[in-house]
Amino acid sequence: MGLDSEFGKIPEFLRIGSNPIFEFNKRIIDATAPYAVAYKPNTAFYEAYGVSGWVNLRMTVDYIRANYPEMFLIADAKRGDIGNTSKMYAKAFFDTIGFDAITVAPYMGEDSVKPFIGYKDKWAIILALTSNRGAETFQFTEDRYGGYVLFEKVINQSKSWGSTDNIMYVVGATKAELIKDVRRLVPDHFLLVPGIGAQGGSLYETAKAGMNAQCGLLVNASRSIIFADSSENFAEAAAQKAAEIQEEMVNLLNDKGIV
Amino acid sequence: MGLDSEFGKIPEFLRIGSNPIFEFNKRIIDATAPYAVAYKPNTAFYEAYGVSGWVNLRMTVDYIRANYPEMFLIADAKRGDIGNTSKMYAKAFFDTIGFDAITVAPYMGEDSVKPFIGYKDKWAIILALTSNRGAETFQFTEDRYGGYVLFEKVINQSKSWGSTDNIMYVVGATKAELIKDVRRLVPDHFLLVPGIGAQGGSLYETAKAGMNAQCGLLVNASRSIIFADSSENFAEAAAQKAAEIQEEMVNLLNDKGIV
Repeated sequence: MGLDSEFGKIPEFLRIGSNPIFEFNKRIIDATAPYAVAYKPNTAFYEAYGVSGWVNLRMTVDYIRANYPEMFLIADAKRGDIGNTSKMYAKAFFDTIGFDAITVAPYMGEDSVKPFIGYKDKWAIILALTSNRGAETFQFTEDRYGGYVLFEKVINQSKSWGSTDNIMYVVGATKAELIKDVRRLVPDHFLLVPGIGAQGGSLYETAKAGMNAQCGLLVNASRSIIFADSSENFAEAAAQKAAEIQEEMVNLLNDKGIV
Repeated sequence: MGLDSEFGKIPEFLRIGSNPIFEFNKRIIDATAPYAVAYKPNTAFYEAYGVSGWVNLRMTVDYIRANYPEMFLIADAKRGDIGNTSKMYAKAFFDTIGFDAITVAPYMGEDSVKPFIGYKDKWAIILALTSNRGAETFQFTEDRYGGYVLFEKVINQSKSWGSTDNIMYVVGATKAELIKDVRRLVPDHFLLVPGIGAQGGSLYETAKAGMNAQCGLLVNASRSIIFADSSENFAEAAAQKAAEIQEEMVNLLNDKGIV
C-alpha cells in the first residue's frame, strides 16, 4: 500500500492538528494492516513539507515498526547518484530510518546502484518499466547492439549485481502485456508493481503475466485506497478498498495453487 | 561549489555541537563566497542524518539567502517520479526550501521531468552524461533508430520541453572530449559540470570543449575544496582552493574575451 499522503488531499478535519500527515497515516495503517503485506511511503509527499514532512515520515515508520513489526517497509524514493553519494542514501533509508527496501533510479549506472545492494536483509528495487506515460520517452529506446530495449537492458545488466534475495524490479501494471517479457528475463525476482487503482492497471492481467510459483509480485495501490473517502469514515473506506484488492489477490493465488 | 558535507569528514572539533553540518557549511560559505557563483548541497549527505540532516540543510539555505542573496542555489537531489509526484518534489525544493534549481533524473521520461520546468526563475538541471564510471552502463546505449546514444537522446528530447532559461544539463568533466558533442546539440544551454577536483576532471579541457560566448558553464567542485584541510584552518584552506579554481576560470574567460 502506497502512503502517498498528500497534505492537500487528507480529510479536512485532520489538517488542523500537529503532524497531520502522521495522524492520517496512523489511522489508515490501523485500518488497512490486516489486508497489507507492505507499506510504501513516497518521499515526495513528505519532502514537500520540508523538515516537518520528514518528521511525519519518521513517525510513520516508527509507528509501523512498533505496532506491525512483520510489515515490509519500502521507501519509494527513486534515489541514485555517484557511488560515494548513493552510499549516503543507502545509509539514510536503511540505517537512519530503517526501511527494508528503497526504489532506485538506474540512469547513472552500476556504481550508482550497487551501494543499495548487499545490506543484510535489505532490498534495492530498481526502476525498470515504470507505470507513467513518460515511460515511453526513454525506456523503450532500442539498443542497436543488444536486440532489446532500455528497460530490458537495465534488468539484464543489473541482475548480476545482486541476487533474487536483494534485488527487485519496478514494473508498471499499466503495461501488463510487457510484464511477460520481464518474466522471461527474471523469472524468479520479485516485481514491485505500481499502477493498480488510480493509474488504471488491472490486477488480474498483472497476475496472469507476472505471477511465478512463489507469487513474486508486490502489487501496490495508493491513491485509490487512501483517498477512497474524505469524510470522517475515510479509514473504513480505505480498509474496504484494501480488502477488495486483497480478496482479489487471494483468489488469484488460489487459482495458481499458492495458498 | 558542492556542499557535500559528510559528517564523518568534517573537522573533529566541529562534530560536537548541535547542527555541526550547518556550522561547517557556514564557515565554508563565509570563506569561499568571494570565489563562488553558486552553492550546490547534495541532499544525500543531509538525508543520511534524517530529520536533523534536513534541519541542517534548511539552515544552510536560509543562511545563504540571508547573507549572500545573489548566490545561485542548486539542490543536487536527482529527483524524478510520475507526474503528480514530481510536482511534489518541485514544491519541496522550489517553494518549501527555496532553491533556484534542482538536478533531475530523466529515466522516467517526459511527465517526470516537466513539473520541474516552468516555475518562474527556476531551473531543471537534467542528468545527461554523468561524471561517474557507471555512466557507461546505460548512458551510452546506442539508439537503433536515432543515430545517437542515450545521453544525447535525453538532451534532444528534453530540450523542447523548456528553454535555455529553465533547463540546464549535467555533463561530467571526466568526459571532456564528449562535452563537444553535447555543445553541438545544445550550443546555448548552460551546463552544470561536476567532476573537477576529487573526480579528476580538467577545468582547462572542460572550458575548451564547453564554453560558449556567454560562458555557459557552471563548473562544480566539492570534496577537493571543502575537505582540503581538516584542521582548525579548514575554512582558509577551502578558500584558497576555491580561489585557485576561480582564478583559473577567470583566465579562461579572459582568453575567450568574456571578461
